[in-house]
Amino acid sequence: MLNVVMISTGEEVLYGDITDTNAAWLSAQFFEQGFAMTRRVTVGDDYEALAKEIEMCSLSADIVIVNGGLGPTSDDLTAASAAMAANVGLEQSDAWIAEMKAKYQQLGRVMPAANLKQAMLPEGAELIDNPVGTACGFIMQLNRAWLFFTPGVPSEFKVMVKEQILPRLQAMFNVTDSKVCHRLYTYGLSESSISDLFQVLTLPDGYCLGYRSSLPFIEIKLFAPQDDIRSTALLSQMTELLGDNIVGEGESLLDSIANLLPKDATLALSEQSSGGFAINWLQDVSSLSARLAQSEVMTDRVDEHACVEELSTLIALRAQRLHLHSSATYTLTTGPSLIDGGFMLGLTTPDGCWCQQLMFKRQYRNYDRRWIISTVLFDMLRRYLQGKEVFGCYESLDRVVSERL
Amino acid sequence: MLNVVMISTGEEVLYGDITDTNAAWLSAQFFEQGFAMTRRVTVGDDYEALAKEIEMCSLSADIVIVNGGLGPTSDDLTAASAAMAANVGLEQSDAWIAEMKAKYQQLGRVMPAANLKQAMLPEGAELIDNPVGTACGFIMQLNRAWLFFTPGVPSEFKVMVKEQILPRLQAMFNVTDSKVCHRLYTYGLSESSISDLFQVLTLPDGYCLGYRSSLPFIEIKLFAPQDDIRSTALLSQMTELLGDNIVGEGESLLDSIANLLPKDATLALSEQSSGGFAINWLQDVSSLSARLAQSEVMTDRVDEHACVEELSTLIALRAQRLHLHSSATYTLTTGPSLIDGGFMLGLTTPDGCWCQQLMFKRQYRNYDRRWIISTVLFDMLRRYLQGKEVFGCYESLDRVVSERL
Repeated sequence: MLNVVMISTGEEVLYGDITDTNAAWLSAQFFEQGFAMTRRVTVGDDYEALAKEIEMCSLSADIVIVNGGLGPTSDDLTAASAAMAANVGLEQSDAWIAEMKAKYQQLGRVMPAANLKQAMLPEGAELIDNPVGTACGFIMQLNRAWLFFTPGVPSEFKVMVKEQILPRLQAMFNVTDSKVCHRLYTYGLSESSISDLFQVLTLPDGYCLGYRSSLPFIEIKLFAPQDDIRSTALLSQMTELLGDNIVGEGESLLDSIANLLPKDATLALSEQSSGGFAINWLQDVSSLSARLAQSEVMTDRVDEHACVEELSTLIALRAQRLHLHSSATYTLTTGPSLIDGGFMLGLTTPDGCWCQQLMFKRQYRNYDRRWIISTVLFDMLRRYLQGKEVFGCYESLDRVVSERL
Repeated sequence: MLNVVMISTGEEVLYGDITDTNAAWLSAQFFEQGFAMTRRVTVGDDYEALAKEIEMCSLSADIVIVNGGLGPTSDDLTAASAAMAANVGLEQSDAWIAEMKAKYQQLGRVMPAANLKQAMLPEGAELIDNPVGTACGFIMQLNRAWLFFTPGVPSEFKVMVKEQILPRLQAMFNVTDSKVCHRLYTYGLSESSISDLFQVLTLPDGYCLGYRSSLPFIEIKLFAPQDDIRSTALLSQMTELLGDNIVGEGESLLDSIANLLPKDATLALSEQSSGGFAINWLQDVSSLSARLAQSEVMTDRVDEHACVEELSTLIALRAQRLHLHSSATYTLTTGPSLIDGGFMLGLTTPDGCWCQQLMFKRQYRNYDRRWIISTVLFDMLRRYLQGKEVFGCYESLDRVVSERL
């Protein structure tokens, strides 16, 4: 069993200014590839503390990934700490200086002097290219461990891990228990309800389940041995149990909608309580944004005097008006927030119009509310396109009204 | 200087199924209170590894917060590991059993036998009440350190830290070196350019600088000793150096716009290349969304034949049309993307209309493009409201056209 350690650096992580998403991402990637983490450590921008940490880890670990502290500023000390841990000096990488100068030239700029620092690597270290930034990574061997030093900027970190570090590790270590990860994206069930449902599952040896709850979805991961026939049966059993709460198999809600949409079908959106979240979200899937016929975002002011029935009529009317105006195949509408923490949704299709009013069962901040409203809105379309019941069951929401016109 | 360590436990954290938000939250809380983290460690549900980690940390740390592994299930091993580390046995806390039974009785249920495990604490440990759950915390003294054991459920963890652990720490340790953090939010300068600018700064003892680059902004943090008069001079020197690239002092771009907006001023938005990002972003600041008079999101299709001049006229016309229709005080407009990776922006005010076309100097994914476009759009308004030059300098963007009408 390999001993794999990650060292995250930086006061911004250690003092809680940012959540260490790189750590979670790397841990998940490594787990899938058979390099499950043994331990993770976070230290600040402290030259000696980091050097000590690197040395300590190098004594017991086979693989150490050090993340962050490769920037040009005074609080980026990782290269110096690595040199101290290995008891060597720093030497300038002319290759990387040339690389950085070229990058700046492309931007029509001269490289700031501060960047020279990013080319100072521990003596004997091997450079790792950073195709998207000025912070190169590097590799050192110290005591028992192979040390990989990586930049903190998530986009740069991920490219480096995927394109250079993982392939290298696979070549260096003969990993037997690398797994395939099958993903099911669900919406509407809580994690505990799902694990209750899954009581009946029996996982064969070498199989394991993982849940990743990223509001508002819960991603279910089945880790299975490479090309094992039993996974098919297991997956269909899981799919059976989750029913129409599955918004996507191996793909997100919006991606599955994009794949379900008939050719030439168009979309129109009218948002109020979702405040533009839906339209902005939709832009992330180009094949959906290309279908957009019309979009508006109204100010979400509630008429204090409007009663629930009036509001239902309102959303129905608005959905149909938009349908006429935009002549889009499908129109999606979010009505105003209800005073006591609810919202309205409308879906118009060639087969008719569905409207519902839902209430939040607990408090959410505004951003999360808009996210949930948009999710249920798109889920109505997903359900319609799959021929499922358009009004789904959502544990965190109460349905007040639902009408089909 | 206190040595403060957090140990997070659990495979779901170590394998990346969940991001360790407890760690970021605790770190921020502790930093504010003068208990800045020295180090954080994450280990899995491994009885011996956790015991070893606890013992190691207890040798060098003054305060150790252990989080997670206090549940009723077989993979919750923290109490046993703590006992092993301290070389003591486990003893049952009758007080906590009574407490748990009472909690279940309130729910009209009988306590499952599995919960008995949660009352087994290391000999000599002091119980910490958990008002919202069945996992009690506990305190032990081992070697140099005070060890605090806390439940992993975020809501339970946070209540315990706030109501019981922090007050206790403040009573136990006379914290002198608690720091204030002054924040400057900038846009338009790269981190390396900023550090070049700051070469001339001399930081007095006890001061330190931190940078946090969260696209598209760079947050600059000045950590200063409590009520130290020198920080005022230092801050104004930094403000001087950064000039109009500061989008907010101690507050974000949108918050400063909200504070700069004249009473009764209203906003109208027409988006194309920003695809609804701006309107959705604006919803996060209620005092801004309340000012919204009108908003539309057009599909971002480019007329291949339109030349740059035509497009400039287009955005100017659209900005002014919107200004008339909405009769809003300020209208913000993003025009279509140019074929070769650029975008147009328009700002209309009572003093006239500003339009500009900008080009990206490098590739961004669609989401980041929309974010940057929206940022520059709002930055135009911020600059106008501050009486600064509306057309700012942005390192990552080239200006193609700029007109004032």
